[in-house]
Amino acid sequence: MYKRLAKRVQRTNQSGLGNIFETSQANLISFAAGFPDQNRFPKKALQQAFNQIFEQSEDETLQYHDSLGFEPLRQKVAAHLKQQGTPATAQNVLLTQGAQQGIDLTARLVLDKGDGLVVEAPTYIGALASFDAYEPTYYEVGMAEDGLDTNQLKKVLLQHDVKLLYTIPDYQNPTGSVMSLSKRQTLIELANRYNFIILEDSPYRDLCYHGNPLPSLRSLDTQGRVINLGSFSKILAPGLRLGWLTADPELCQALTTLKAGADVETPSLVMQGVNAYLETNSLEAHIAEINHLYQQKMDYMLACLDKYLPENISYTKPQGGFFIWITAPSNIDLGALLTSRMIPEGNVSYVPAKNLYPSKAFHNQARLNFTGQSFENIKNGVQAMSEILKDVLTQNYSYAGSNK
Amino acid sequence: MYKRLAKRVQRTNQSGLGNIFETSQANLISFAAGFPDQNRFPKKALQQAFNQIFEQSEDETLQYHDSLGFEPLRQKVAAHLKQQGTPATAQNVLLTQGAQQGIDLTARLVLDKGDGLVVEAPTYIGALASFDAYEPTYYEVGMAEDGLDTNQLKKVLLQHDVKLLYTIPDYQNPTGSVMSLSKRQTLIELANRYNFIILEDSPYRDLCYHGNPLPSLRSLDTQGRVINLGSFSKILAPGLRLGWLTADPELCQALTTLKAGADVETPSLVMQGVNAYLETNSLEAHIAEINHLYQQKMDYMLACLDKYLPENISYTKPQGGFFIWITAPSNIDLGALLTSRMIPEGNVSYVPAKNLYPSKAFHNQARLNFTGQSFENIKNGVQAMSEILKDVLTQNYSYAGSNK
Repeated sequence: MYKRLAKRVQRTNQSGLGNIFETSQANLISFAAGFPDQNRFPKKALQQAFNQIFEQSEDETLQYHDSLGFEPLRQKVAAHLKQQGTPATAQNVLLTQGAQQGIDLTARLVLDKGDGLVVEAPTYIGALASFDAYEPTYYEVGMAEDGLDTNQLKKVLLQHDVKLLYTIPDYQNPTGSVMSLSKRQTLIELANRYNFIILEDSPYRDLCYHGNPLPSLRSLDTQGRVINLGSFSKILAPGLRLGWLTADPELCQALTTLKAGADVETPSLVMQGVNAYLETNSLEAHIAEINHLYQQKMDYMLACLDKYLPENISYTKPQGGFFIWITAPSNIDLGALLTSRMIPEGNVSYVPAKNLYPSKAFHNQARLNFTGQSFENIKNGVQAMSEILKDVLTQNYSYAGSNK
Repeated sequence: MYKRLAKRVQRTNQSGLGNIFETSQANLISFAAGFPDQNRFPKKALQQAFNQIFEQSEDETLQYHDSLGFEPLRQKVAAHLKQQGTPATAQNVLLTQGAQQGIDLTARLVLDKGDGLVVEAPTYIGALASFDAYEPTYYEVGMAEDGLDTNQLKKVLLQHDVKLLYTIPDYQNPTGSVMSLSKRQTLIELANRYNFIILEDSPYRDLCYHGNPLPSLRSLDTQGRVINLGSFSKILAPGLRLGWLTADPELCQALTTLKAGADVETPSLVMQGVNAYLETNSLEAHIAEINHLYQQKMDYMLACLDKYLPENISYTKPQGGFFIWITAPSNIDLGALLTSRMIPEGNVSYVPAKNLYPSKAFHNQARLNFTGQSFENIKNGVQAMSEILKDVLTQNYSYAGSNK
């Protein structure tokens, strides 16, 4: 007999998230997954830190504790946020299973079925996978080089009731763009005027390769409407699955209660291990080191794109983060091309645009990650991708010509 | 301006879950929290295992992997389940953030707002905290010594549409009771006839002190309707936050997709560390060792209850697990008594019944944990609790007498 599942399952099954980490093909050059460079994980220092925890600490290390998370680590996260210019105290930092859980808990906090949710278009695929479970009414607001289109947002707000806005203001996933200061200020004003909550997802904020980060939305927040997310996944290692959120005490407490229902607490072993790492190592020095490498990788991928890509494919030039966003002529379906030729023939992959829009309306764009691959693979992958694109564009041109 | 949150927040804020781990009072003897004995966590062996992971494995150990979880560990969990008599393969085992996440993901999989959900009454408080977020319509079915009252369940099923039933068949939390084999068989038949899914939560299954475990519901499942949950929290250590679920491939795949949206994946470091532990240590031997201790603690608490409790307070005599359930005369509010006298005066705590029923209808019962405290504390705590209960019952008797 047919099993009766929740309505949300139909939508979440189409997220396309599962495909990103697909690496079954040997030697595939994946620009798809948002991988940090695994050769730079501070394994030795982490090993020492975890050893210290097993050796020195009380038996209660591995016991249940509480849903807010290990306090010394919350203090260090708060200090790190303050150094970034974002106000935070240990009391309003909640430790999470990566920033992903912060997205899920915020959706759980704010969204009833059908509620208005504004997302940047395109946006982070994993956020949509989480939001889908809460069945919101999506409103897409387009991205410009200086962040989301606030004029378009104003039109949405005049016509629709919006409860939550999700944004990645720093080195946006997937476009790489940074929201301008004036747009940040406008966004706070609009949130106050239209009574919505802003989810500021900032896992890339520390990964600044050119210029300086702008003030976070949370630092500009005047009415406690911003929930700010961060993560150790990009600056230490994803395999720790450790992130955080900071918000006003009222919201932080409600989110902590929701976390208790979701998974009780974040693994105590991991929280204490990372805390020990931070006590004897400089996170800032580690970030500076990986930023140096990531800047070189980004610049190298940009140089390769400049050299190999056909002229009518454009790409963004980010100041930081993990991603470059390419746009082909509107008749090119980069999703279809990925499975028909890029993976089997070019041995290269990326994230096609389709699943990065709730409306799934765009097909001619794709996200490229530059941090996870070697310089050699960056060059070879961009070359292979460019060859196929050239071929497709030539065919299209011929075909268009033959139609005349 | 008032911030607009989801309707579920009102309910989840009243769960009472946050109070269980309250340990701010020095030297409080807590029978409240479901703590394993922290002196028996295999710290040295886990340290060696985690060290091995940091030393031997590839750089990709700390990279992103996939939402299903580390395959060698899934194989070992499947083998452990098969040894228990529960069918499982690595392909239909999903590794989770403790069994708690399995509850949350199953609710997400099955429940639309208002859907019928049967729970045992009383049941696990954390399950209610998770279910509350999905706003089901609760139907409570009472507990007997041999598990939930299937006659009462049949009446519910005749009158209401039920999509999900949540049960803890082995050493139930909080009553300690074991569901009989005939009730297990009845439950499967009813699930098939009325087309609902069974969530079988079995974190205590290995903790059998007298007799032998009965076949799991999952092993009796004829139409793939049972989702079975387990956890390393009670048999290794809660601070790892590592659990699993097994279900038919169709459901397992949908749950994996939902996990991707919830927190991407379980920490790779923890999965690999526990896998390495299991490769060089006998989990069965470790379980036998803690079972020996827990049986002694349970028998000791039962002896103390027998000796000190007033006559008109009854208690269950479990065959395994973590908990004993006490029942006072119906006019005694053990919740009110906890805060008015037990904690401040008796220096002892327990989980009062109220929050273990969605209806919050019962006040004269409480859950006692025996695994987390020393023998001395078990004796002193039961004594202190019993003194206050005697006092209250005497007062009640006098008061009732003076009313004549």
